[in-house]
Amino acid sequence: MSDNPVIAEVARGALVESFHRGAGAVVDADGRLVFAFGDVERPVYPRSAVKAIQALPLIECGAADRYGLTQEELALACASHSGEPKHVATAAAMLAKAGLNEDALACGAHWPLNAEAARALAREGRTPSALHNNCSGKHAGFLCLACAQGLPAAGYEAPEHAVQRQVKAALEDVCGERLDEARRGVDGCSIPTYAISLRALALGFARMATGRGLGGARAAAAARLFAAIAAHPFHVAGTGRFDTQAMTMLQGRAVTKTGAEGVFCASLPELGLGLAVKADDGASRAAETAIAALIARFLPAAAETLAPFLCARVTNWLGTQVGEARPAGPLAAT
Amino acid sequence: MSDNPVIAEVARGALVESFHRGAGAVVDADGRLVFAFGDVERPVYPRSAVKAIQALPLIECGAADRYGLTQEELALACASHSGEPKHVATAAAMLAKAGLNEDALACGAHWPLNAEAARALAREGRTPSALHNNCSGKHAGFLCLACAQGLPAAGYEAPEHAVQRQVKAALEDVCGERLDEARRGVDGCSIPTYAISLRALALGFARMATGRGLGGARAAAAARLFAAIAAHPFHVAGTGRFDTQAMTMLQGRAVTKTGAEGVFCASLPELGLGLAVKADDGASRAAETAIAALIARFLPAAAETLAPFLCARVTNWLGTQVGEARPAGPLAAT
Repeated sequence: MSDNPVIAEVARGALVESFHRGAGAVVDADGRLVFAFGDVERPVYPRSAVKAIQALPLIECGAADRYGLTQEELALACASHSGEPKHVATAAAMLAKAGLNEDALACGAHWPLNAEAARALAREGRTPSALHNNCSGKHAGFLCLACAQGLPAAGYEAPEHAVQRQVKAALEDVCGERLDEARRGVDGCSIPTYAISLRALALGFARMATGRGLGGARAAAAARLFAAIAAHPFHVAGTGRFDTQAMTMLQGRAVTKTGAEGVFCASLPELGLGLAVKADDGASRAAETAIAALIARFLPAAAETLAPFLCARVTNWLGTQVGEARPAGPLAAT
Repeated sequence: MSDNPVIAEVARGALVESFHRGAGAVVDADGRLVFAFGDVERPVYPRSAVKAIQALPLIECGAADRYGLTQEELALACASHSGEPKHVATAAAMLAKAGLNEDALACGAHWPLNAEAARALAREGRTPSALHNNCSGKHAGFLCLACAQGLPAAGYEAPEHAVQRQVKAALEDVCGERLDEARRGVDGCSIPTYAISLRALALGFARMATGRGLGGARAAAAARLFAAIAAHPFHVAGTGRFDTQAMTMLQGRAVTKTGAEGVFCASLPELGLGLAVKADDGASRAAETAIAALIARFLPAAAETLAPFLCARVTNWLGTQVGEARPAGPLAAT
């Protein structure tokens, strides 16, 4: 096991109660490692953090134009959404444009990530469908891609299907790293997830933001997706979520994307930088604290905006603050 | 920061995706350290893991007898329950016996930990009260203690209130360690939590199970609480929870109790041993894996029963297994 540094700590009273180790990389679009901590060469599953890269073929093959996908729909194709009514309706609309419905989705159903949305569903006597799955927009995008290319919709989630082969090729091209079939896992939504180094992930996010090192059509597709995300941060996550709040507040100065098991990626377009972190233990709270600290380090103007994430309140059930989560080690405030 | 070993890992496909570090101690009732890994002297907040010890004064002062508390109610006083209807009704009954109702609870309200119970509440158009708080049984016990002693009920959660002073004294006596006011935090339910070493926690659980080293009345109170817990494991946690499942399956051969932020304690009465673990990062999944591995190490007959916890399935949203969580390092299967 790698011996990564402590990157975030959670204090209660005068004591640090828990702490998180991890690694992170900041890379420019030419591949220069600008800043790093921990082992940034070890391959990690990027999970949902790379959804924007996975959505590139949807634009490049003409499917987005053919079906007239809106900016909200493109943002949802890059989303881990909270299953709120707007998210569900947008996913359903994408499928309808390809002549499909939720029965075509292979992602499985789960209760909305947003607790109030889940309770509202229960209040109406309903249960969730695959549309409520946080990945339904990505899957709807995959299905649009399959239909536009005349590929069979069934089995679109399998590694050998042409949809996933195109997605894998896009990841390899953008991140500049070969994806090894021996390091392939199955994601929660049943598509393949390929392990990749944090250095390559950060490079991918630098290229997505700048277009440098990508072909012209790919660079244009990346710009279109990032513009959609920046314009509709609610569609990428949801009420109260880090991505939605941070991107809303930073107004396009950062594009961020969470992934399961403590992965977080971001782009800082004006600086041409890509950022990628992974908490060893898979904790979201550590990944959020770390990516906020990294953004603030390179974009000092964002520090005030990101303050609620840089020093997150830990409260009791009455709402009184009893502790805080904060960056540590190489990410500690100086 | 201490450099504790990796104790649990979560694999997806052929790769370890995330891993957890931590420490743990196994101690007999005479205080001998039988087995240990990581730093077991560092004080950690025990959180809810010590609720049975915190419930001792309730028995010792005669409140449990005066109010005729049932075994289910005593188990609930030691519980981090899931807010299911039986838990809520039991907490309400305890309060009624002391002439109080939920308005006296200082723990705050939260939606039931059990997702189906939360949705059922929403379906009925209701919102949670303090009775649904996972600590409502412990708080109802504190209120019974206050009322039986003629103490003011208001403020019973404060460190300087006689209830919390008695609770602190019981912890110091049973665990054999002085609790430092400088290492006091506020728990999620607003009562004080004092940092204590894993070695002392494990000793406390060995003493609770055996009565050794405790005065006669305290030993009898401990035996009564442990008998109530073993007889009613549902009341200590709830549907699908580790404590309820493990204690139901092990039929009294282990008494276990989870605490927030990756703490887990257990007693093995027939061996006279106490066990305590803390995951550095606060992850429940790591603490569950670690305590299951420790129990199986000293009670090999339990290994088969605990198999679902020793190698926990990681599934996608369709329910297909895509990985596993398992013990590692000093706890790896040999």
